[in-house]
Amino acid sequence: MVADYTDSQSYDRHLYAQDIRASQAHARMLGRQGILTEAEAAELVDGLETVRREIEEGRFVWKRELEDVHMNIEARLTELIGETGKKLHTGRSRNDQVGLTFRLYVADALKAWQKDLSGLIEALAGQAASHQETLLPGLTHLQPAQPISLAHQLLAYCWMFIRDSARLSDCLKRVQTSPLGAAALAGTTYPLDPLSVAKDVGFKAIYDNSLDAVSDRDFVVEAQSCAALIMVHLSRLCEELILFANPNFGYLRLPDAYSTGSSIMPQKKNPDVCELMRGKSGRVFGHLLSILTVLKGLPLAYNRDLQEDKEGFLDSHTTITSSLTVMAGLMRELVFVPERMASACKSGFLNATELADYLVSLGHPFREAHHITGKAVAMAEALGLRLEELSLVQLQSLSADITESVYPVLDAACAVRRRETPGGTGPKSVERQLAKVRQWLAEN
Amino acid sequence: MVADYTDSQSYDRHLYAQDIRASQAHARMLGRQGILTEAEAAELVDGLETVRREIEEGRFVWKRELEDVHMNIEARLTELIGETGKKLHTGRSRNDQVGLTFRLYVADALKAWQKDLSGLIEALAGQAASHQETLLPGLTHLQPAQPISLAHQLLAYCWMFIRDSARLSDCLKRVQTSPLGAAALAGTTYPLDPLSVAKDVGFKAIYDNSLDAVSDRDFVVEAQSCAALIMVHLSRLCEELILFANPNFGYLRLPDAYSTGSSIMPQKKNPDVCELMRGKSGRVFGHLLSILTVLKGLPLAYNRDLQEDKEGFLDSHTTITSSLTVMAGLMRELVFVPERMASACKSGFLNATELADYLVSLGHPFREAHHITGKAVAMAEALGLRLEELSLVQLQSLSADITESVYPVLDAACAVRRRETPGGTGPKSVERQLAKVRQWLAEN
Amino acid sequence: MVADYTDSQSYDRHLYAQDIRASQAHARMLGRQGILTEAEAAELVDGLETVRREIEEGRFVWKRELEDVHMNIEARLTELIGETGKKLHTGRSRNDQVGLTFRLYVADALKAWQKDLSGLIEALAGQAASHQETLLPGLTHLQPAQPISLAHQLLAYCWMFIRDSARLSDCLKRVQTSPLGAAALAGTTYPLDPLSVAKDVGFKAIYDNSLDAVSDRDFVVEAQSCAALIMVHLSRLCEELILFANPNFGYLRLPDAYSTGSSIMPQKKNPDVCELMRGKSGRVFGHLLSILTVLKGLPLAYNRDLQEDKEGFLDSHTTITSSLTVMAGLMRELVFVPERMASACKSGFLNATELADYLVSLGHPFREAHHITGKAVAMAEALGLRLEELSLVQLQSLSADITESVYPVLDAACAVRRRETPGGTGPKSVERQLAKVRQWLAEN
Amino acid sequence: MVADYTDSQSYDRHLYAQDIRASQAHARMLGRQGILTEAEAAELVDGLETVRREIEEGRFVWKRELEDVHMNIEARLTELIGETGKKLHTGRSRNDQVGLTFRLYVADALKAWQKDLSGLIEALAGQAASHQETLLPGLTHLQPAQPISLAHQLLAYCWMFIRDSARLSDCLKRVQTSPLGAAALAGTTYPLDPLSVAKDVGFKAIYDNSLDAVSDRDFVVEAQSCAALIMVHLSRLCEELILFANPNFGYLRLPDAYSTGSSIMPQKKNPDVCELMRGKSGRVFGHLLSILTVLKGLPLAYNRDLQEDKEGFLDSHTTITSSLTVMAGLMRELVFVPERMASACKSGFLNATELADYLVSLGHPFREAHHITGKAVAMAEALGLRLEELSLVQLQSLSADITESVYPVLDAACAVRRRETPGGTGPKSVERQLAKVRQWLAEN
Repeated sequence: MVADYTDSQSYDRHLYAQDIRASQAHARMLGRQGILTEAEAAELVDGLETVRREIEEGRFVWKRELEDVHMNIEARLTELIGETGKKLHTGRSRNDQVGLTFRLYVADALKAWQKDLSGLIEALAGQAASHQETLLPGLTHLQPAQPISLAHQLLAYCWMFIRDSARLSDCLKRVQTSPLGAAALAGTTYPLDPLSVAKDVGFKAIYDNSLDAVSDRDFVVEAQSCAALIMVHLSRLCEELILFANPNFGYLRLPDAYSTGSSIMPQKKNPDVCELMRGKSGRVFGHLLSILTVLKGLPLAYNRDLQEDKEGFLDSHTTITSSLTVMAGLMRELVFVPERMASACKSGFLNATELADYLVSLGHPFREAHHITGKAVAMAEALGLRLEELSLVQLQSLSADITESVYPVLDAACAVRRRETPGGTGPKSVERQLAKVRQWLAEN
Repeated sequence: MVADYTDSQSYDRHLYAQDIRASQAHARMLGRQGILTEAEAAELVDGLETVRREIEEGRFVWKRELEDVHMNIEARLTELIGETGKKLHTGRSRNDQVGLTFRLYVADALKAWQKDLSGLIEALAGQAASHQETLLPGLTHLQPAQPISLAHQLLAYCWMFIRDSARLSDCLKRVQTSPLGAAALAGTTYPLDPLSVAKDVGFKAIYDNSLDAVSDRDFVVEAQSCAALIMVHLSRLCEELILFANPNFGYLRLPDAYSTGSSIMPQKKNPDVCELMRGKSGRVFGHLLSILTVLKGLPLAYNRDLQEDKEGFLDSHTTITSSLTVMAGLMRELVFVPERMASACKSGFLNATELADYLVSLGHPFREAHHITGKAVAMAEALGLRLEELSLVQLQSLSADITESVYPVLDAACAVRRRETPGGTGPKSVERQLAKVRQWLAEN
Repeated sequence: MVADYTDSQSYDRHLYAQDIRASQAHARMLGRQGILTEAEAAELVDGLETVRREIEEGRFVWKRELEDVHMNIEARLTELIGETGKKLHTGRSRNDQVGLTFRLYVADALKAWQKDLSGLIEALAGQAASHQETLLPGLTHLQPAQPISLAHQLLAYCWMFIRDSARLSDCLKRVQTSPLGAAALAGTTYPLDPLSVAKDVGFKAIYDNSLDAVSDRDFVVEAQSCAALIMVHLSRLCEELILFANPNFGYLRLPDAYSTGSSIMPQKKNPDVCELMRGKSGRVFGHLLSILTVLKGLPLAYNRDLQEDKEGFLDSHTTITSSLTVMAGLMRELVFVPERMASACKSGFLNATELADYLVSLGHPFREAHHITGKAVAMAEALGLRLEELSLVQLQSLSADITESVYPVLDAACAVRRRETPGGTGPKSVERQLAKVRQWLAEN
Repeated sequence: MVADYTDSQSYDRHLYAQDIRASQAHARMLGRQGILTEAEAAELVDGLETVRREIEEGRFVWKRELEDVHMNIEARLTELIGETGKKLHTGRSRNDQVGLTFRLYVADALKAWQKDLSGLIEALAGQAASHQETLLPGLTHLQPAQPISLAHQLLAYCWMFIRDSARLSDCLKRVQTSPLGAAALAGTTYPLDPLSVAKDVGFKAIYDNSLDAVSDRDFVVEAQSCAALIMVHLSRLCEELILFANPNFGYLRLPDAYSTGSSIMPQKKNPDVCELMRGKSGRVFGHLLSILTVLKGLPLAYNRDLQEDKEGFLDSHTTITSSLTVMAGLMRELVFVPERMASACKSGFLNATELADYLVSLGHPFREAHHITGKAVAMAEALGLRLEELSLVQLQSLSADITESVYPVLDAACAVRRRETPGGTGPKSVERQLAKVRQWLAEN
């Protein structure tokens, strides 16, 4: 019962590849430093390769009584190559070994997230490229505010995910630091060369302090925090897709593979995938909180509480990679309905701001322009008309200097076209954004 | 009642300096771009300067009905300089204005945290420098494991806080991006130069997308996550100080100013400050979770939920700066009790690892060396002796090849001295760490 | 600086009334037990009454150097009545005193929440009573599924808030337990009668163990958890109000006092209050997490970390009472737009389930009925018709046994009327719910 | 890939027994109500029994393409008994079916937790009964404060866990409410008798509103909150055990089965189990936050986000039952070391409060008594003596009225014996607590 309670091999076996990679680098260093003979080092490296094959081919027998992935692998190694197998542990302890293995796993995961982020950004940019002319009402407070292009809306998400990728790069700098050499907590008496091990596994740095090395789990918090933000962005995108799939909006048709239907309502498509993804933000936020709770108030150096660092991360890893991949697939196959968006642009007086700007351009002070516009909107609403359906006479009754030139200004497409400040929804701004996103994709 | 509910001026007035700075930069740009005359721009900048003085001299009257800091300042500006005051808002909306103001505030806060981190690191390094020869039992599982130097233990925290500072630098890159120019959500029709405003306030970049600009609060999550890790580190340090202040340890004496006493037990010093600081990790974790909850599932672009971004950050800011400063003060005045630590090093068979290493150096295989050491410890314990108090005859009864040369090896100071691998507790390693920390302090 | 850090009087002064109430009960008991003379007890009770008046009339001078509300009150009491004032603390310590004071405050708060919940339930029930005939599409997956009555939808929230009130009653049982008599941690040597103090302040029980008494903060977690669920329910209601206020839905018009407008779009009403309330769920979730973090891993008995129990609760208290009151006001003044709801009921084939049920009633197996219905919906959609607009001939081409009797079945009102199982949307079920809610209101 | 993403059968199969129980109750009701024939109902009940046996005997083939536990079971049922199998779903939908199944599972889990809590309380009470005479220093601020009995310390935890059990009982009232009859969201047209189904499965009530029935997950939040508090209590107990196992305390010896050793330090026992359990508070706090996040802002009625309610609960269930059982086992086998505790009682001037009380009993005012005591402690400390080692002459130099009668008062056992107020550490109070706990155990 206690063995069940403290067992970790049931889940940390997912780290087998990283454990073997770390052990091989350690063995090679022991050889280089003359702590083992070159022959012993080679024997260890080869033996570990055999273990890896056994695991990958499903022939490896995991033993609960051996507690964790490290002991399972080391025990099998010794079965395979004999006494030399026991020398693998020279100059290290489980505390620094597990630290390096887990950092390698996290680093691999974060790089995978970056790749998946790129896939989603590419899908979003692809749709954006196809919808530079498609207009829809931009919302604030979930109320229609101003017309924008669909491309601009989709690009907003590209920038969020690009930011996520940049954050992961920053996080990786700290993840890719090797604790090996710290041994149990104080360093070791063997003449190790820890930096060469770090470089062998692709890391750039080692810890400056052995106590910090074996007890630091900041990198898990940081990675979980990055994951939480990715889920925030996905949940926002999902919320919009769910909303836009509602027939009152009707802005999009979900691909069959990404929605569930109803045998009696074949037209109905439930956005289950988006809902589930929105809900999965909960588990990732939870994992972030979990690791913070684990770390709060822990004295130095290693404490067994730290074993709780892995399961949450493994689950976040699965959640992030599957969510990003599924969303990329959905986004590629999603069909937007420009006509419903266009029709929505016509109601809600989205062009009121344009009229006000027009009046300012005629020389009216800002507040007066707003006041006149308010009266025009009220008049139109009372008559059941749109602003652009008011006659010139009607408009001039509010401000005598209005001319025919007002009508082009009131067109939604015109409103969009005029917003070409950096980052604006104007077509050139959108073109610039697209180019920059593609450039980023080429480089990342 | 509703006005009370939606009010924010009661707390966002803390951002007055940043709001004025942002507005002045905006005004100068409007002048440069010819959107306002240079005279108007100057009038705005000067008027805002007057408002700033009124606030700083306590003469400003905050009005609840004006909702927030921005409206309060703009209204007063217009009282002071007349109609021109209303032109300040040309080409911007409250959505991008509040975005820039808050980012400026967060950036200032993060830089203050970095300064406070440096102060604490300096205090820790100072104590470490004085305690390079002081030894104490290094703990794993809260059990004595191996002797280490107190300097090494204190330096472990230096590296955590240095990592915090590096994380803040990464975070600042994203905080220091200006959303101005996004207007309400779609950009504006005025020929603004948003990048010049960004540079004017000391930022390096602007947002690529106006929808993202007004709805992004990632930087708050990231800053709160950095704050949470700082509190994790402080809570760990506090836990150790509380533990070491317990008379069963007796490793330190808290300075009077940082502890509370008892009139009837004048010798007693309660580590209230450390306990409270450990507890304050809760509020910062809470604020991180709060902002994640706020953002989950929010559609684009601006939604009033985002008003909830500030209070938590203001509280984290107060908590982080006061905690770091108080801990730096405490650390500078803390008195360690080396004799209690030295005495603790003598019990618990902390030198068992040394004996095993000694046996390995004689040619015993690793496991056999461990086995013999275990028997030696058991023998010593049964006799109520320390390992080094066993006679040579007794030791040789376990392994005939042990000689007098074993005794120096069993000395705690020797054990520490021998751990000179990078990051180890050995004196040269500690010296290298100290030099590197001082170098870092000189550069940060 | 340290004094600022450990100060609590700046916020715990909100507990002055509870502190005085607890102290008066303690003083009366000391008198009854003969520990003080009756005259001394009376002097203390009267002196505390004077202090209360000074505070309530704004004449009390709070002193930071006296740390907390308890010391401030006791010091003033002694100024007022002399040496006897110092006897108030006989047989108690700050540890059990603050415990009782805070429990009294929490109990008062929870009862206030219950009152505010009743106010909101009444407002919801009032609207429900007016909208028993109003139909709208019930949503699953944010997709129209079946017609329901608006009354039914509003009543769903009544039941959530009734459940919240029941939870608070359960929580109160545990809050209303007095820790007084525990003294610092071990009980006291004075012949106190703690149960009589508990009863004096309206509590029913005392703690069975003094260590538990001074260190238990479970009741804060429980209260914060109740608060979190109230905010969950409010956030769900807000989400629907925000959605229904979007013009694509157009189901409701927000009262002016509960929305913000736009000078240039006078028709526009932003649901700021609902958005802000939805966002405020974040801070309450955060406070729940904070107190859990504070408590994790704390050894017995009192630790200063526990001072962190109050600020989060004070903020949750403000948030809950203001949110419930504001929402009750909004709900009372909200104007629904039945015609928009009715019109939405006509699209989306909400009556497909009815057709399937009709076919089952004709003897078709369930799956076959579904299959035929699916073909009918597809036919109608292809023709741009509603199901009820298909001719009898068309329907019979799918299943020959369909007769004119199908048309009444396809009516939305009919669909609602037929769902009279307990808890269903049928008018009698709704009537029963309304009666039960009113009964509950009468009793709570 | 999407199928993997939305799959739930991989984990919700744990609910098979509850799903079958709910379905059998539904079938029996359909029979009773004449919606199905009695024969059909019996066939369904028997068929479901067969499915249960197949699952329990490991012969059931779970199919991913059938998504969840419900569809897997229903599909197999239909394979087994033919067309009648399809009638099981009459009058219900997956929305209310999953709701009932999950509530049954949660109810079973909470009852299991209560049983496990009782087991732990029994173990704690057993140790307490054996240690009524064992004294140790009671701590506040982790500083020795007053002597208490070990029984009293252990009983403090009994009361926490009894409170947990009471909370679970309250929670169960709300969990044991059946949503069946709500169908998809609006109720059904079949003449169901939902209350009889509720009673059949052991529940007492049904939901009053079908929309609430299918969308309510409050009970998960409430259960997770109860779980979080159980983990808070366990983490506090673990913290103390870890602390007391440190050799500087040396208050206890961990049983071998509940600690891990070291081959070279056979005397060393690491409290891994306690550390891991303390750490596991993190995952349970995380699950609580997760479900709150999922629910925030969800509109009515069913949304697929709700599928995220189960995995966190399943994990909390495993964590709670295993943690409680392991801790009960550990507590039963734990060996305390009374002599180390007794020796600790002698230092730290734990009897200072006694001396002050003694002086008060001689007629000194409270503050003066404290002042004299402070001087006595200072004198003793300066001389390296305990208070009781000061001579009468020395004591009388501080207060002339002190007599020989002071020495018994200064004895730790005497200090404990005198604290017999309700809940105090005195032996009679402890005896009363023990009796009350045993009474509770007999009734629970």
